[in-house]
Amino acid sequence: MQMTDLIIKKRDGAELSAEEIQFMIDGYVKGVIPDYQMSAMCMAIYLRGMNDRETLDLTMAMVNSGEIVDLSAIAGVKADKHSTGGVGDKTSLILCPMVAACGLRIAKMSGRGLGHTGGTLDKLESFSGYNIAIGEQRFIENVNRIGIALIGQTADIVPADKKLYALRDVTGTVPSIPLIVSSIMSKKLASGADVIVLDVKCGSGAFMKDEAQARELARGLTRIGRLAGKKCAAVITDMDQPLGRMVGNALEVKEAISVLKGETRGDLLELCLTLGSCILTEAGTAPDADTARAMLLRTIEDGAALRKLAELVAAQDGDAEAVYDTSRLPLAPVQTEVISEEAGFLSHMDCEKVGLISMHLGGGRATKESEIDLSVGLVLHKKIGDRVEQGESLATIHAATKEKAKEAAALLRDCCTFSAEPVERPAFIKAIIT
Amino acid sequence: MQMTDLIIKKRDGAELSAEEIQFMIDGYVKGVIPDYQMSAMCMAIYLRGMNDRETLDLTMAMVNSGEIVDLSAIAGVKADKHSTGGVGDKTSLILCPMVAACGLRIAKMSGRGLGHTGGTLDKLESFSGYNIAIGEQRFIENVNRIGIALIGQTADIVPADKKLYALRDVTGTVPSIPLIVSSIMSKKLASGADVIVLDVKCGSGAFMKDEAQARELARGLTRIGRLAGKKCAAVITDMDQPLGRMVGNALEVKEAISVLKGETRGDLLELCLTLGSCILTEAGTAPDADTARAMLLRTIEDGAALRKLAELVAAQDGDAEAVYDTSRLPLAPVQTEVISEEAGFLSHMDCEKVGLISMHLGGGRATKESEIDLSVGLVLHKKIGDRVEQGESLATIHAATKEKAKEAAALLRDCCTFSAEPVERPAFIKAIIT
Repeated sequence: MQMTDLIIKKRDGAELSAEEIQFMIDGYVKGVIPDYQMSAMCMAIYLRGMNDRETLDLTMAMVNSGEIVDLSAIAGVKADKHSTGGVGDKTSLILCPMVAACGLRIAKMSGRGLGHTGGTLDKLESFSGYNIAIGEQRFIENVNRIGIALIGQTADIVPADKKLYALRDVTGTVPSIPLIVSSIMSKKLASGADVIVLDVKCGSGAFMKDEAQARELARGLTRIGRLAGKKCAAVITDMDQPLGRMVGNALEVKEAISVLKGETRGDLLELCLTLGSCILTEAGTAPDADTARAMLLRTIEDGAALRKLAELVAAQDGDAEAVYDTSRLPLAPVQTEVISEEAGFLSHMDCEKVGLISMHLGGGRATKESEIDLSVGLVLHKKIGDRVEQGESLATIHAATKEKAKEAAALLRDCCTFSAEPVERPAFIKAIIT
Repeated sequence: MQMTDLIIKKRDGAELSAEEIQFMIDGYVKGVIPDYQMSAMCMAIYLRGMNDRETLDLTMAMVNSGEIVDLSAIAGVKADKHSTGGVGDKTSLILCPMVAACGLRIAKMSGRGLGHTGGTLDKLESFSGYNIAIGEQRFIENVNRIGIALIGQTADIVPADKKLYALRDVTGTVPSIPLIVSSIMSKKLASGADVIVLDVKCGSGAFMKDEAQARELARGLTRIGRLAGKKCAAVITDMDQPLGRMVGNALEVKEAISVLKGETRGDLLELCLTLGSCILTEAGTAPDADTARAMLLRTIEDGAALRKLAELVAAQDGDAEAVYDTSRLPLAPVQTEVISEEAGFLSHMDCEKVGLISMHLGGGRATKESEIDLSVGLVLHKKIGDRVEQGESLATIHAATKEKAKEAAALLRDCCTFSAEPVERPAFIKAIIT
């Protein structure tokens, strides 16, 4: 078998066999197939596509390129969630305790990742002492005992994706549905859960800018998940503005706690209920979505979800008291209001730029080695559709220095567009794909 | 400027600016842009195309990546010819002397190239002593004195093409019209001629298998040539069977001499007359194709073209007597007839395989370092449409050993398909693109 022949086959729109895909991924991981052939193949896949059979074979070849997490020692249904990434996305901090409080098992290993804020692991480290490296044995024990554990990756899963993603990133081949699907699903499949729910973001702050693309991706993800023998559903959600009101690590933990306490409602809670009811119905824990929502809401009303978060933090050596007393979480030394110079209805927010502001404040990683300032970020007081008066505060910046806060405030003002006419609030949940 | 952005632009079907194309070729030749980005770009160009403006800019960026041959010291109109490559193509050996005998200037520098037989330079080396490295000064002097010189490349023309072609070869991006056009035309433009005629082969033994593709390529080549300020025409010719009857270096020289002597007519002479009349009319030497053909035929009838070949060989230290006495050319020790086991009308010949037989006999180069046996090859006695009786000879194999001859004979039999019904001879000149 020759890689050049496989490239030509895909270039001409033909289907690659399972054997050919396996040959290509094996060879690439081993370094036998060079980057310049793989990048030509990625472009051919980008422009010619792959059918479900090919995408599944690609996904499985990638899964088999590395270790697979073995969760068989955990009794019960294991659930996992993946988000395609957005600004202010603290969903896992709310959803995981709720779902665990409903009796499902959350055994989640995550990478740290790059982004506007840190990942879930970074956010959890806002709890002083939280240990993301408790070892595999305690990980399994904790899940069996309290139903939940969130740790850093211990296994070398899907090395093919690491290599391939780095290549796609510099060759214009990132936004290809079969390549995204295989990248996401290979990692989810190698992580060992039985039920997988996917949050596909769509809008100015997301990778997928339009809804048609997002739908295509969501359908691709769930189809491949099911073909691989998993229970799978996807939700398409708006990312034309940050999720909730807080962006930044400790700030997002605070907002999550506020939701778990029942103090904050709105889009963030709605998303957690939607994702959660997908999990509960797919797992068979609830017979239908209405029952599932009721079960999930009860974990907030009776405090079970909040207690589950505290249990998680305590079980991983973190300061669980901070769950009940958020003044124990990191707080930035400077808080500055972003005063609106205009009046009108907030009509547009450059969501991606809002994320970049958080990163400039020190809340995200530009490179793998960057250190994160957990305390910084921003709290939005206005969202799209809200009426704003001149002189009113649009947001509060949490920064390390006054200078940084001032810069961030100016940048945030630039992110906002106002309209004289009332503006409709964007529909938040755009579709549920089961 | 970022290469990734340029890849994305082309991937999405947009037009690249002259500046962007220049940046890309410069960076690639300098090694700043890595192979894996260039191969993704080539695949994007393959699948998205380039318009004439982009193709011209790409061609000129490639021309400017290296030296440009300066023919200004040569008086008169300089003509050049390029063939996309076929089996048994000895056209240059006939066309160049004919055109020079009509008063135009042939100042041709060639690379050796890979292929079923050697290139024109290898074939000329069948004349004992022929020197392809006479130096630039003698090259210019010879052209000014006798109107013709054919030497090896002295200048480092179009290094971008060398690097790019090697990459395209292993990334499935060879048969892209804009990439082929820029590859061919950059070398022709850097070679300094005023009139360029292109022989685009089409059929089972050619790079372009179907006529529509060949037409597209021919149109692309002539458009870019003209946009670059050259006189330019193209001829599309059949390559479903070898050109003429002989394949192999010295054998092809013999066939060329036979045509120049007026002893052999048929497709080979027809092609030379067609290409030659394109040159003469484009150059303004002849007012129309009929006059041009008559002028060219006269160079055969009065022996001027044959004398011109002898002058060329003599001027480059070769054994010019061999032009009049071909027994002085290399002759293989073994000649074997290929006896037909079938009877019928020859309906199909696998032309590419016939070329490979010549290569297996030792007449072509598999790698740049291969040594060529100038004496070996094959002489076809039957061509498509001919009636063949069982036991009749299909061809004569010229080989170094009996064993090689036997192998070649078996392979040649496999190349031939017979039909019980009469078969039409394929139309040889398919189109003239001016």
